Amino acid sequence: MSIVERLAELGITLPEAAAPVAAYKPVIVAGGLAYVSGQLPFIDGALVTGRLGEDVDVERGYAAARACGLMLIAQIRAAGIALDAVAQVVKLGAFISSSADFTDQPRVANGASELMAEVFGEAGKHARSAVGVPVLPLGAAVEVDGIFAIRG
Amino acid sequence: MSIVERLAELGITLPEAAAPVAAYKPVIVAGGLAYVSGQLPFIDGALVTGRLGEDVDVERGYAAARACGLMLIAQIRAAGIALDAVAQVVKLGAFISSSADFTDQPRVANGASELMAEVFGEAGKHARSAVGVPVLPLGAAVEVDGIFAIRG
Amino acid sequence: MSIVERLAELGITLPEAAAPVAAYKPVIVAGGLAYVSGQLPFIDGALVTGRLGEDVDVERGYAAARACGLMLIAQIRAAGIALDAVAQVVKLGAFISSSADFTDQPRVANGASELMAEVFGEAGKHARSAVGVPVLPLGAAVEVDGIFAIRG
Repeated sequence: MSIVERLAELGITLPEAAAPVAAYKPVIVAGGLAYVSGQLPFIDGALVTGRLGEDVDVERGYAAARACGLMLIAQIRAAGIALDAVAQVVKLGAFISSSADFTDQPRVANGASELMAEVFGEAGKHARSAVGVPVLPLGAAVEVDGIFAIRG
Repeated sequence: MSIVERLAELGITLPEAAAPVAAYKPVIVAGGLAYVSGQLPFIDGALVTGRLGEDVDVERGYAAARACGLMLIAQIRAAGIALDAVAQVVKLGAFISSSADFTDQPRVANGASELMAEVFGEAGKHARSAVGVPVLPLGAAVEVDGIFAIRG
Repeated sequence: MSIVERLAELGITLPEAAAPVAAYKPVIVAGGLAYVSGQLPFIDGALVTGRLGEDVDVERGYAAARACGLMLIAQIRAAGIALDAVAQVVKLGAFISSSADFTDQPRVANGASELMAEVFGEAGKHARSAVGVPVLPLGAAVEVDGIFAIRG
């Protein structure tokens, strides 16, 4: 099954790839790896803002991280890379807007991580870092960047 | 035009490459990529300290990010890599010291991003993450690290 | 001398490799590089929690960062990579849980950096970023991720 078929089977529609907020590119390919810029969480076209431990609960944070993951995949496709050419999701970096006492960043970041495993199967299992940050661009609740290995 | 000539045309003088604050190296090359350690912003030899949203405005933060970018380039040169051998600026990671309600990290990080495009042209356009952090080494306002693809 | 012999000479016993807190993998190898997930600091089996500038001093933070470094090495070994196959420690990313006025992140991160130089010698000297964060998973004081070049 192709990844496009797999997305359809999962009932996933990729979002429109968001334009960079500023002077950089969404995806750079170097040495067989696609580096994807940090993506913000859009659900139904609206940015998920707020802070875990304050006005965003873990469930909403998980959904936000999943939305970041969908945007990572959408950016790869928008860069003209066939999703079937993704050989491995290599690394995700998850930055979670967090109050000083919120320590469940891993459960939030799982929204992106579990999406990758759903979409890419074994090749979707990646290395990851998840950390708390006080604030993100545009007040986003979550930002996730990624590195993907691309087949020759 | 060589990059050195381009820097001259832009009126840019690279700073003296700063020594690492601690037990690591400024640049490691592996697999055709140069990984450059997080650089702090020095303007006229003085560290730009403070926090966006408090005592550093966006214009000053932009200048600080640009200074980090200049230091990234200076480190590459100091590592003995010819600037003309930079095939692509691959990824910048921008950490912006931010108050809890400052959400303009992208405009600040543009100081480094636009510098790369000025100096390296199309090859200077990179993937990027920009996040807020509560505090940085030595009280710096901005820290930027980078990955650069180097020609054979 | 092999790295295993070197560890013995240094009196270092690697910890049991910790299972991921969530839906990701400890190590992914791509393009000759091993990407190791962010590791938390366990000393004598207990997580080092707290925040630099509040309830964790620099000495304890240094020990925590060293513990993260040991876990990075333990994860590489647990992934079935011979430690003698580590050609270069390429990059460490150190996230230090910090109060708003704590600016000694580099001295804390040195705990991981100096460990790499002790264990791997010249090949242990790496590029690095060290930043403050407000909070980390499970309340950890330090999190460190890494990229290691692996021989053929």
